[in-house]
Amino acid sequence: MYPVIFHIDEEEKWPLLLGNVKNLRAERMDTEIEVLANAAAVKNYQHGAFNDQMRNLNNQGVQFVACQNALNAQHILKEDLPEFVSVVPAGIAELVKKQSSGYAYIKP
Amino acid sequence: MYPVIFHIDEEEKWPLLLGNVKNLRAERMDTEIEVLANAAAVKNYQHGAFNDQMRNLNNQGVQFVACQNALNAQHILKEDLPEFVSVVPAGIAELVKKQSSGYAYIKP
Amino acid sequence: MYPVIFHIDEEEKWPLLLGNVKNLRAERMDTEIEVLANAAAVKNYQHGAFNDQMRNLNNQGVQFVACQNALNAQHILKEDLPEFVSVVPAGIAELVKKQSSGYAYIKP
Repeated sequence: MYPVIFHIDEEEKWPLLLGNVKNLRAERMDTEIEVLANAAAVKNYQHGAFNDQMRNLNNQGVQFVACQNALNAQHILKEDLPEFVSVVPAGIAELVKKQSSGYAYIKP
Repeated sequence: MYPVIFHIDEEEKWPLLLGNVKNLRAERMDTEIEVLANAAAVKNYQHGAFNDQMRNLNNQGVQFVACQNALNAQHILKEDLPEFVSVVPAGIAELVKKQSSGYAYIKP
Repeated sequence: MYPVIFHIDEEEKWPLLLGNVKNLRAERMDTEIEVLANAAAVKNYQHGAFNDQMRNLNNQGVQFVACQNALNAQHILKEDLPEFVSVVPAGIAELVKKQSSGYAYIKP
């Protein structure tokens, strides 16, 4: 099994990241995929333009996660996020912990 | 032995990446170096501006790899690439597999 | 204990990176944090705008490191750097070695 965490902190990288995730899913490898957004990239969870793509991937098992520090900085409430987004206190700590437990790291 | 995979998905990062690889080579560490290009960065395999530098590094053992998904998106045929470039079906899967087998990951 | 190396090669990413490090520190996890700057990003060790933040983090145990190859390319002498910055011969080699010894890699 291949666990992998994608890191995104720039809004404009969402199309590239979502394409990356779809291409990885298409390989039918045994993966566990988490997408961790911090900094400005958390805004796109709320904006909605990519929400259909995200929800579809979430239905296939891809986890979408937001950093609470970033939500605070962007004045976004957890309640304003789609139901498929989970929140961690610190996105960077999540990246560290996941790599420590064997996740590959990819930064599109 | 230090295996390392460099990830590039932006065309403008090639000079920085190739400089990074040369600096790492100059350290005379026992390394195994792969350069994995996906997204728009695969275009520069075809354009040719960096091909001499790449070929020289390849002659020293550096592997240059292109993502087939990206080649398809850019309408580039494998036959259009220099002989020293190899192709994998999905660049992201390659990044995951290599890290899973102990490669360091560097994104210039 | 969670060892982590942050990689920065672009000047404009310093505010984001320093915020990332502060957020990680605030989690009060048992971390060992190194910031490795190469390419143009080493210039900001000299410029001084972020030096107070860096020194404060260094006093908390965060290591700030510059790549000698990058210093040479930017015509910066080691003597021109603040006292809390250490220098390694090749930043990329440092990233490889640290990951090989179990450090997580984060590229803001």
